[in-house]
Amino acid sequence: MTKTRIGIVGYGNLGKGVEAGLERSKDLELVGIFSRRQPDQLDTSSPAYHMDDLMDFKDQIDVLILCGGSQKDIPVQAPELAKTFNTVDTYDNHNEIPVHFEKLDKVAKENDTVAVLSTGWDPGLFSLNRLIAEAILPKGETYTFWGPGLSQGHSDAVRRVSGVKNAVQYTVPKEEMVKDVKDKKSVDYNKLDAHKRVVYLVLEEDADEKEVRNTILTMPDYFEGYETEVHVIDQATFDKEHAGMPHGGTVMRQGKTTDDHTAIYQFGLDLDSNPEFTAAVAIAYARAAGKLAEDKQYGAKTVFDIAPGLLSPKSGAELRKGLL
Amino acid sequence: MTKTRIGIVGYGNLGKGVEAGLERSKDLELVGIFSRRQPDQLDTSSPAYHMDDLMDFKDQIDVLILCGGSQKDIPVQAPELAKTFNTVDTYDNHNEIPVHFEKLDKVAKENDTVAVLSTGWDPGLFSLNRLIAEAILPKGETYTFWGPGLSQGHSDAVRRVSGVKNAVQYTVPKEEMVKDVKDKKSVDYNKLDAHKRVVYLVLEEDADEKEVRNTILTMPDYFEGYETEVHVIDQATFDKEHAGMPHGGTVMRQGKTTDDHTAIYQFGLDLDSNPEFTAAVAIAYARAAGKLAEDKQYGAKTVFDIAPGLLSPKSGAELRKGLL
Repeated sequence: MTKTRIGIVGYGNLGKGVEAGLERSKDLELVGIFSRRQPDQLDTSSPAYHMDDLMDFKDQIDVLILCGGSQKDIPVQAPELAKTFNTVDTYDNHNEIPVHFEKLDKVAKENDTVAVLSTGWDPGLFSLNRLIAEAILPKGETYTFWGPGLSQGHSDAVRRVSGVKNAVQYTVPKEEMVKDVKDKKSVDYNKLDAHKRVVYLVLEEDADEKEVRNTILTMPDYFEGYETEVHVIDQATFDKEHAGMPHGGTVMRQGKTTDDHTAIYQFGLDLDSNPEFTAAVAIAYARAAGKLAEDKQYGAKTVFDIAPGLLSPKSGAELRKGLL
Repeated sequence: MTKTRIGIVGYGNLGKGVEAGLERSKDLELVGIFSRRQPDQLDTSSPAYHMDDLMDFKDQIDVLILCGGSQKDIPVQAPELAKTFNTVDTYDNHNEIPVHFEKLDKVAKENDTVAVLSTGWDPGLFSLNRLIAEAILPKGETYTFWGPGLSQGHSDAVRRVSGVKNAVQYTVPKEEMVKDVKDKKSVDYNKLDAHKRVVYLVLEEDADEKEVRNTILTMPDYFEGYETEVHVIDQATFDKEHAGMPHGGTVMRQGKTTDDHTAIYQFGLDLDSNPEFTAAVAIAYARAAGKLAEDKQYGAKTVFDIAPGLLSPKSGAELRKGLL
């Protein structure tokens, strides 16, 4: 078997997750990690290079997995790199996905490359399940619950509050609402009421706890309007209990197959490490990108456009025999 | 929008489910129901015809949904009808799927048709999730739990026991094992130990209850070796509580993203009506079959070969904007 040769661009949590995940895939091979930092500054035993040298690897890499941030890196990097490489990203700015798609599609079609965008789990597997559930149960309602899990953006927002030394924020779905959906009850869902936000923080020595709490609870967009719990803890507890990056959630659809009969479609994830799982999804789509490029199916592709069989290293016949 | 024109072959529970489901899909249109029974014997207000007249509808039907049985009807009907029509079936004899695929693929490629096989939920959506979960989490273990739900084959087997007037059999997964998988515990799974079988039956007047029980509990393949409960009830209770055809189940994978981190991937269905949901899946794949045929992607296809976006009546742009 010829291995699909993978390059990693960016070496944060996601890039590290891809590096670790590739070890579990015998049909994929890591060619190198490319970073804006100097290679000797990266804590890795894999081959590492500076971003400036990436073009030298044009003929040695089949698919690049882009592990930069969605806010600043991907919108610029992805269309640029798709001129030369087949790419996979985990771009997660939902509102901007259509624009990102159009940009990538143009570049990829002009340059005979494949650009897979917005893989991961939301967008990604959750999107896939929203689509399948709706296509099968056209009369119904879809509910997405995020968490329990660490929210990176909200944790950052709390850490920026004056007087806060360290903080994490967990998004927690309201279990009673999840249960009502499962129990086929009618549910009045909106994202805001369906989740609560739980903050654990360590105060600076001279901080005013009351003021910190108030600043958090009234923070617009982030916490205002949400049921929010703020727990002040000490640094030792913080280090011991809040070092991981767990996440997950559930997509459910309540659909009517006839007026008298309900079907509940449910997809869920429970992840010890959010970035590692996101990386695992990106890796499977990198495998698919390699096959699509071989088949000259150029252009931008989302999880909706890719036949699931392409995600697997197994042949069609093996899949039909073993998994159908 | 030009509607995709659908024909139904066979008018049992599944055919009725397809007929009901098509009412919920505005982009699909029922042309007719085709049965081996005389049309006036079918309890339907839809256009109904005898099977012998099916070829007259060659140019009026885009996709046929085959609703006959997997044991006798589909293996014969599907390859024959795929010579003329694009077809979708719910063939569920797992061991014979590879043979069924090869037969259909040959016929469909020779005749420029699309033949989608083994849709439904197992095979079908469960298979899809087994594949995706394994592709994303290559190091791990997949568990399938069936039920709680009515098992048609096992109910039939009990009904054939002398002295039994009426019977249903429910397959029930052992909740403690399901919970252990969710809780990331190591689980020693085999299909037999993971499920119990619960029988409700009504006895004939002169039946020997002890003998009936014994015959059931020792029935090879069906009950022997399984934890089995037999409940004898009266006809009134039977009619009241056991008329539906509920089913469902769960596919789960426990995977390691790194040695220290586990991910739980979970897909579940809870269905008031098994045949109606199976029909709903077949309908979505009939939509896809129509699009594949338009795109001249001829041959046999399984759920592994079909890009999920094709299941939806929405355009790629609508899907990216609304569901990704």
